[in-house]
Amino acid sequence: MGPTARLADFIVRTPTTAIPPHVLHEAKRTLINILAVALSSSGDSSVDALDAWGRSEGAASVIGRGSAREGHAALVNGYVAHLQDYDDTHFPTVLHPSAPTWPAVLAAAERNGTSGAETLAAFAVGCEVACRVALSVHPWHYDAGWHITGTVGGFGAAAGAARVLGLDQAQTAQALGLAGTNAPGVREAFGTNGKALHAGHAAMSGLRAASLAAAGFSGPTTILEGRRGFWAVLSPGGHDAAPIEALDGLTPGARWEVQNNGLKPYANGVVSHPLQDAVIALRNAHAIVAGKVRGIDARVHPLVLELMDRPQPETGLSAKFSHQHCAAAALVDGAGHEAQFSDARARDPQIAALRALVRATPDARLGEDEVHVTIRLADGRALSTHVEHATGSPENPMPDAHLEEKYGALATPVLGETDAEALLHAAWTLDQAPDVRALMALASKRRES
Amino acid sequence: MGPTARLADFIVRTPTTAIPPHVLHEAKRTLINILAVALSSSGDSSVDALDAWGRSEGAASVIGRGSAREGHAALVNGYVAHLQDYDDTHFPTVLHPSAPTWPAVLAAAERNGTSGAETLAAFAVGCEVACRVALSVHPWHYDAGWHITGTVGGFGAAAGAARVLGLDQAQTAQALGLAGTNAPGVREAFGTNGKALHAGHAAMSGLRAASLAAAGFSGPTTILEGRRGFWAVLSPGGHDAAPIEALDGLTPGARWEVQNNGLKPYANGVVSHPLQDAVIALRNAHAIVAGKVRGIDARVHPLVLELMDRPQPETGLSAKFSHQHCAAAALVDGAGHEAQFSDARARDPQIAALRALVRATPDARLGEDEVHVTIRLADGRALSTHVEHATGSPENPMPDAHLEEKYGALATPVLGETDAEALLHAAWTLDQAPDVRALMALASKRRES
Repeated sequence: MGPTARLADFIVRTPTTAIPPHVLHEAKRTLINILAVALSSSGDSSVDALDAWGRSEGAASVIGRGSAREGHAALVNGYVAHLQDYDDTHFPTVLHPSAPTWPAVLAAAERNGTSGAETLAAFAVGCEVACRVALSVHPWHYDAGWHITGTVGGFGAAAGAARVLGLDQAQTAQALGLAGTNAPGVREAFGTNGKALHAGHAAMSGLRAASLAAAGFSGPTTILEGRRGFWAVLSPGGHDAAPIEALDGLTPGARWEVQNNGLKPYANGVVSHPLQDAVIALRNAHAIVAGKVRGIDARVHPLVLELMDRPQPETGLSAKFSHQHCAAAALVDGAGHEAQFSDARARDPQIAALRALVRATPDARLGEDEVHVTIRLADGRALSTHVEHATGSPENPMPDAHLEEKYGALATPVLGETDAEALLHAAWTLDQAPDVRALMALASKRRES
Repeated sequence: MGPTARLADFIVRTPTTAIPPHVLHEAKRTLINILAVALSSSGDSSVDALDAWGRSEGAASVIGRGSAREGHAALVNGYVAHLQDYDDTHFPTVLHPSAPTWPAVLAAAERNGTSGAETLAAFAVGCEVACRVALSVHPWHYDAGWHITGTVGGFGAAAGAARVLGLDQAQTAQALGLAGTNAPGVREAFGTNGKALHAGHAAMSGLRAASLAAAGFSGPTTILEGRRGFWAVLSPGGHDAAPIEALDGLTPGARWEVQNNGLKPYANGVVSHPLQDAVIALRNAHAIVAGKVRGIDARVHPLVLELMDRPQPETGLSAKFSHQHCAAAALVDGAGHEAQFSDARARDPQIAALRALVRATPDARLGEDEVHVTIRLADGRALSTHVEHATGSPENPMPDAHLEEKYGALATPVLGETDAEALLHAAWTLDQAPDVRALMALASKRRES
């Protein structure tokens, strides 16, 4: 039994009668002691601030699920934004900036009646802060085991919410401090619901930090650089002030990191994306149907075989890490959304037969976002293509039309065609909207289940 | 301007009009992208669990402040329990186990209608888990800059809540995993409201972890030992499985760490506690009044002068780190509660005059909890005493009667005498109570402000 299991065993199996009376007496004493100090502290003005936020949060929209108090809305929206691992990625750092930042910005904007244009600006600023903090600790921080979306994400959420709520500079530094000292998330949680909870927590924590700072609750204003701050404690092996120092409030915009933030075209491991791009390009150009295929030959970056070599995966989840499945589904459906990674699709005989025809050869000279693919057909033709930069990489951003396809494939089954189109229109015209409420009213319509 | 201030400056001062149109277009694209994936994810069963907890939490008592939803109650109660730094201390690790653990246990017990005896047992088990995890990472973890009460506290809260809610072993391991991957808090927050927020977060997070695990939400079940788990990431320089391995569910209780958990007799830095013990002992034994004192001579552990040498502090907060003030207030009031550390008491002329009569000499042969004190009086007498182990240290636990005095001094001004006594009685007889509701109803009476 491992150490965590042993603790769980102790918690569950220790009989109450086996706990000695002196230990239970000590338990009473600790209770009396903290009741005393808690009562004595309960009138402090900082408690007023903390209690007020938790009790009188405004109502905010929960995507697909109606409305709730704003802290909860931020938590759930951050969670669902990251759950499929299908959100955006800041390529230089593997930060997913939107899942923590957008929910905090949107909830604050709903409370505040902020205009659409200012809401977009707050996200842009919050996203920039998150990416800059991420750059300041990458790669040491992630390599050490931190889930950077959980830890650094809170800075983005706090920054965006602070901007929406109109905090001054001093309050904003407090908000960053409160977010930065409440920034958890280790990679051991990958593969569990705990991973997406990191993004949800970061969204909630950043919104809370900005709200508390606005009410006079104090936080550490040297959270990055302090002797016991974020850099020293969460990235002791490597951090770099330069990405932060390069920010200058008077002349912003020399560069914006959102340009290095890619949208994922496929809901699976990123190293297989060039292969899917190539198969879909050939399929569409030559109207290839599965039954006519005799082979799919690919020269790939070695990571594809290292991370995603599963010839016949048996579940949808493992299919996401099978380059063979990704290529086969891309040929049959021309896509790689959640629908292509259901358990049923993993067991589909047509896809299984195609998977067996995929041959990938590693070539270390290729880029990670590069591939060469040849599809051999029953009529003897061999159709080849070369993808230099996969869709969604900084060098080849997903076109707007492709994003609309992805949106439609995911949103329409939930909202129906009319509402899904109205929501898309509301997002594209957000800079013209008086506030975000119409957008969020559509996004939070309860799904029919 | 430091890096954190620079970020705050960027957030506050960047004009919306200075953000390039292509950046705002990219912001819209990220919004459309996460709306799509969030809508697609919004019906997942894990979202049902997360949403249900946040929406349908039971009501729980907030100490001194009425009732609220249980997550908020745990957050605020953990915060107020730690705000004065006057709660308990696990001496081997400087963990404060009660502030995170008790609020989670109490809120879960209120929801569940758990008996008083089972509630005490759940705290004993949760406290043990927190202390064992703390021992497994001490001293590396704290020395690296982590606030162990924030990080490890969540394990205690999750363990106690899991026990109350009757989770099985597998669910309990998930709950520990969710708490352990949501365990933030750096020491840079010391001196700000952020420090006590760590304890509140740990209480809330542990309660949430147990509640989510009970609803089927998954977490990492190898949170301690995993390759990217708590030990590897939050204590890479030193951790030790032995304190955990020593737990055995079948034969618990060979030792209980709560015996090494001390209750603080004074609301100030711990190194000055032996000095205060000695002054109060002499004062009470010989009915010493301030006007008759000509000198207070002490031989002290060197840390007293290193950490607490402030001859004439000007605020209540700095008086907490003045051994001179601590000794003077002990002589005048026979105590060292919050009342002895108000700004007014720091400026009190009688106390200022006494502070000038304190002479402390370092002696490296003494223990940290040891002191020799001589008080010289106007009539020529010199009264001496030796404190070998200060009150509240494991070798000299605070007597129950002393705890009752501390409780009375802190609780009575808030609750009034009748309710304060009733609450004290409810705590001492908790093992007889059918549930914790009567206790919490008294503890949460709204203070008159």
